[in-house]
Amino acid sequence: MYNQIICQICSVVSCKYHFSLSTRSMASKTPVGFIGLGNMGTPMARNLLKNGYPVIATDVFPESCKELQDLGAQVMDTPADVAEKADRIITMLPSSPNVLEVYTGPNGILKKVKKGTLLIDSSTIDPAVSKEMAIAAEKMGAVFMDAPVSGGVGAASMAKLTFMVGGVEEEYHAAQELLTCMGANVVYCGQVGTGQAAKICNNMLLAIGMIGTAETMNLGIRLGLDPKLLAKILNMSSGRCWSSDTYNPVPGVMEGVPSGNNYQGGFGTTLMAKDLGLAQSTATNTKTPIPLGSLAHQIFRVMCSRGYANKDFSSVFQFLREEEGQ
Amino acid sequence: MYNQIICQICSVVSCKYHFSLSTRSMASKTPVGFIGLGNMGTPMARNLLKNGYPVIATDVFPESCKELQDLGAQVMDTPADVAEKADRIITMLPSSPNVLEVYTGPNGILKKVKKGTLLIDSSTIDPAVSKEMAIAAEKMGAVFMDAPVSGGVGAASMAKLTFMVGGVEEEYHAAQELLTCMGANVVYCGQVGTGQAAKICNNMLLAIGMIGTAETMNLGIRLGLDPKLLAKILNMSSGRCWSSDTYNPVPGVMEGVPSGNNYQGGFGTTLMAKDLGLAQSTATNTKTPIPLGSLAHQIFRVMCSRGYANKDFSSVFQFLREEEGQ
Amino acid sequence: MYNQIICQICSVVSCKYHFSLSTRSMASKTPVGFIGLGNMGTPMARNLLKNGYPVIATDVFPESCKELQDLGAQVMDTPADVAEKADRIITMLPSSPNVLEVYTGPNGILKKVKKGTLLIDSSTIDPAVSKEMAIAAEKMGAVFMDAPVSGGVGAASMAKLTFMVGGVEEEYHAAQELLTCMGANVVYCGQVGTGQAAKICNNMLLAIGMIGTAETMNLGIRLGLDPKLLAKILNMSSGRCWSSDTYNPVPGVMEGVPSGNNYQGGFGTTLMAKDLGLAQSTATNTKTPIPLGSLAHQIFRVMCSRGYANKDFSSVFQFLREEEGQ
Amino acid sequence: MYNQIICQICSVVSCKYHFSLSTRSMASKTPVGFIGLGNMGTPMARNLLKNGYPVIATDVFPESCKELQDLGAQVMDTPADVAEKADRIITMLPSSPNVLEVYTGPNGILKKVKKGTLLIDSSTIDPAVSKEMAIAAEKMGAVFMDAPVSGGVGAASMAKLTFMVGGVEEEYHAAQELLTCMGANVVYCGQVGTGQAAKICNNMLLAIGMIGTAETMNLGIRLGLDPKLLAKILNMSSGRCWSSDTYNPVPGVMEGVPSGNNYQGGFGTTLMAKDLGLAQSTATNTKTPIPLGSLAHQIFRVMCSRGYANKDFSSVFQFLREEEGQ
Repeated sequence: MYNQIICQICSVVSCKYHFSLSTRSMASKTPVGFIGLGNMGTPMARNLLKNGYPVIATDVFPESCKELQDLGAQVMDTPADVAEKADRIITMLPSSPNVLEVYTGPNGILKKVKKGTLLIDSSTIDPAVSKEMAIAAEKMGAVFMDAPVSGGVGAASMAKLTFMVGGVEEEYHAAQELLTCMGANVVYCGQVGTGQAAKICNNMLLAIGMIGTAETMNLGIRLGLDPKLLAKILNMSSGRCWSSDTYNPVPGVMEGVPSGNNYQGGFGTTLMAKDLGLAQSTATNTKTPIPLGSLAHQIFRVMCSRGYANKDFSSVFQFLREEEGQ
Repeated sequence: MYNQIICQICSVVSCKYHFSLSTRSMASKTPVGFIGLGNMGTPMARNLLKNGYPVIATDVFPESCKELQDLGAQVMDTPADVAEKADRIITMLPSSPNVLEVYTGPNGILKKVKKGTLLIDSSTIDPAVSKEMAIAAEKMGAVFMDAPVSGGVGAASMAKLTFMVGGVEEEYHAAQELLTCMGANVVYCGQVGTGQAAKICNNMLLAIGMIGTAETMNLGIRLGLDPKLLAKILNMSSGRCWSSDTYNPVPGVMEGVPSGNNYQGGFGTTLMAKDLGLAQSTATNTKTPIPLGSLAHQIFRVMCSRGYANKDFSSVFQFLREEEGQ
Repeated sequence: MYNQIICQICSVVSCKYHFSLSTRSMASKTPVGFIGLGNMGTPMARNLLKNGYPVIATDVFPESCKELQDLGAQVMDTPADVAEKADRIITMLPSSPNVLEVYTGPNGILKKVKKGTLLIDSSTIDPAVSKEMAIAAEKMGAVFMDAPVSGGVGAASMAKLTFMVGGVEEEYHAAQELLTCMGANVVYCGQVGTGQAAKICNNMLLAIGMIGTAETMNLGIRLGLDPKLLAKILNMSSGRCWSSDTYNPVPGVMEGVPSGNNYQGGFGTTLMAKDLGLAQSTATNTKTPIPLGSLAHQIFRVMCSRGYANKDFSSVFQFLREEEGQ
Repeated sequence: MYNQIICQICSVVSCKYHFSLSTRSMASKTPVGFIGLGNMGTPMARNLLKNGYPVIATDVFPESCKELQDLGAQVMDTPADVAEKADRIITMLPSSPNVLEVYTGPNGILKKVKKGTLLIDSSTIDPAVSKEMAIAAEKMGAVFMDAPVSGGVGAASMAKLTFMVGGVEEEYHAAQELLTCMGANVVYCGQVGTGQAAKICNNMLLAIGMIGTAETMNLGIRLGLDPKLLAKILNMSSGRCWSSDTYNPVPGVMEGVPSGNNYQGGFGTTLMAKDLGLAQSTATNTKTPIPLGSLAHQIFRVMCSRGYANKDFSSVFQFLREEEGQ
């Protein structure tokens, strides 16, 4: 009886489900690697520190590491150096080429990754790249999971992100342990790449709903409806969506949303265009028709070149609206 | 003091607001005219009878009047005949030309309408036609309001329709008195035509949300996501909309919706295409850009000619989906 | 033999085909009415004068008549006055409501039209309105034909317009006699309304081809192709169209087109948006899907509200192109 | 003087321009490698044989080599084997992954390519992959050019293809020598990848023009125009395009085109959808908005899943047209 182990995850004695994880799970509070200290990565890593995890970090721009270093994180020169020291690593990078470089580049993680290392990528990238990374990691005896987030810088600071996780189910609990330090919701989506898929799908529908809401509100106003009243009617009817009831794009309809603040803050049009580019690519690769998603992509793309790149994506209302005096 | 009148609407003595209505309001339970006894009109008129209103009805197809006649309604030959007998008339017709005919045709209502008659049109038509009818009615001393409905045949039978009402505010209470016999919600939208505007706007956003949901679910499934899980993720995120959380178009995701019944019942694609045609026309007339609304219109239009005319509009999921074996 | 008549149209003795027209045809050089003296109407009427036709004109803005009056035209107060004096009348008006007013308004043509008068409407309007006017004219014993033009102000001045004519075939020659004074091509299209239909169809395909060319040229340039070379390749291949080989929207590719002159002159975006609005309406009314035509409409509509209203419609290249420094 | 060389290309003595090519150029009629013997590759290789070039060929399906072998070609097992024997190699493969495999796979060309070998890829693929192959080839001392074709199996058989060629200009003449055996037009487009770019751009505009023509013809017919007359009007006006004047999609308007033969033969919808997928990808990667191109892509994508995959792409007319009896 003396060798019985109580599972740290589910508290069951000799739990068979989580047993394989126990070595790593028991290693809690051993260092966690963190690569990519941008606007999102820095507050995420800070939350790991707050939860008592030593953090070993790096970024392609050394100055980005300053804040975290002051908070006690150990800063390394390259992803390979991080991989030498940590058996759990989180990456948070802008796009697919950065992920390829950080994992498989000359100073990449996989150059020095230890067997059994858990690699969690929170970047939003093409699911096909996630799958590629998972195969490359597996060859080195490591495990790769994709865990993109929804929620912006504010949610990252307050540990209120939502993580959509793809990867082998057996490793999900180990990932969840870390992700719950940084987010309020962690959802298991299925095999590697499905985290990305869920993120991309949600944002595509969000983009369609936002443009649709902007068009509809604009049309209604032109037809003589009061915008607040129209929003109320939509929200009690079948036109209801997140963009109409939570993030209305018409100035004055709701408080505390970017439309009330000249479309400052929020989720930039350029970021939405990037996510729609991913949706478009995965749809093209899988021969899936996405007529509205595709048109939404084109609209945000045009907006990017007409001065809306850094405004919140709900500024599509402004873009579509007849300007005064014209 | 003996000549004080208690307002039948708000119970205030000598109420100034409703006083002008009092003659008509006091005339409650005097006959109500009803023109247009189709799938929607018949159950609506039935609910008026249930509420104790004598009904004087007519329809271009005499056989459509049979059921209502058996229930005690008086059947007339023409709209003009109805107008001679009733000072409150409700019309429920398929489209703008029918409304024009019933109101301004050679045997139309306005040929014999009495001064002060309240005309309520529950058809879904172009708001410009509603405004035209209002002007024509005013010339005859009558009052016209537009009051299109949302909710289908089931809601009509159970008096659960939503009415969106446009017209002069002073007459709204008088209209509301009748409409509450046939619906669960009655919303005042503003001047004449805004009821139509609200209906059209809601249905346009509904159409966009439905196609968007169908595309998104299809893409997610192709990327390896379980449809129920994907719906759950969308519904807790910013992709959430009525079509994803209340009327999901993917068979097996929800119960009690047309997608679970081979897209039988519900709201036919051909009806959605009609409403989008109205949205398109009003947008064109007001020079309002509606890129997604317009594309949604075209998609439902193509579906109508490819065998989906009578299926529920959520069958767009089936239309977009790669068929097995192809 | 003494009573044989040589047809003035085809020079055949006792021609049966044109005989019914002979009274009016023989009346050549009797006055022609002209209503609508805008940018297009004035040079058109001028060409009638040049060809020896006395012109009796009117316009809603009296000052518009000045130029023609100086050239010898007789100016009347109202369309009805014109109709009293002329048995052939040409109208050139901005849009459907103007046509309705000029023909059926209180001082409209049909108030005083003489039996047998030939009415030719060169406005670009909804074919349904043309049909309506034809029916109204027929009731008064007059004949209505629609004859919209292609070609702009320059073509109008040089009598190089193309007329697309709809109406009863028997009257076509009589119309042709006048139209050839103002245009280089006169095409008979079929029953009333088909002139409008042909015009609308051509302009819809033109709009699609222009946006398509703009997108394609922009994409090619972004992929490293020289724009002149790309235009040359397209024009010898299956991508060839009028917008690529005759009116290329990329500055520097061709000479003598608006793209070489900062999109000044040419065919304004706002006019193209108007024609696409007609295409959209006729498509909606006939339940015809026009996915690209509809999207083209929306794009020009957005351009109108973003500063492109008065630029040539080929400025869509500029609208879609990533701006420098962004 | 004895060592003067007359250039085999331009016949100039000691020509400086072509001199660097002279070794390879003088090797004319030395063997040419050909990889990919499908519907297009086989007739192309046949034309090389006809022109007196020994051909060394291979294909992933050995049975595809039978015809060419009977005509005297030498058949090898793998691309690497071909590369060992030939210093000019043409590849004609279905898509990017095949190109990657044939060039950089374990038995790929680059495993055994000789220094100075000229590699010409006539596949239609992403220009980014062409650039990647050019870099990989350069590392091995070889030269890679992209030379996709327009024209189908018929043009391939009759040596009437058009080649759009990208790559270093100095090598263009050497490529041209071979390509003129197989095609009627060879166009130099610029640096590596521009051949693909030109092909993709042309086909995108073709797709837009075809759908536009189909919509326009359908609308015109619905408005009462005779299809032959409408085509004639478009073709003398600004709506003119290759799809209206050379390949009209309406049955009965032209002879000798797929629309006259139930859309058999021609250019399959599935191939057009593939090319539009490439356009979409390159546009997404370069952040170029292509609203109509993108919608055209989606329409052909939907058609592929609704029974039109193997019909000529002009069958979009049939797809959009209201079916009889519906």
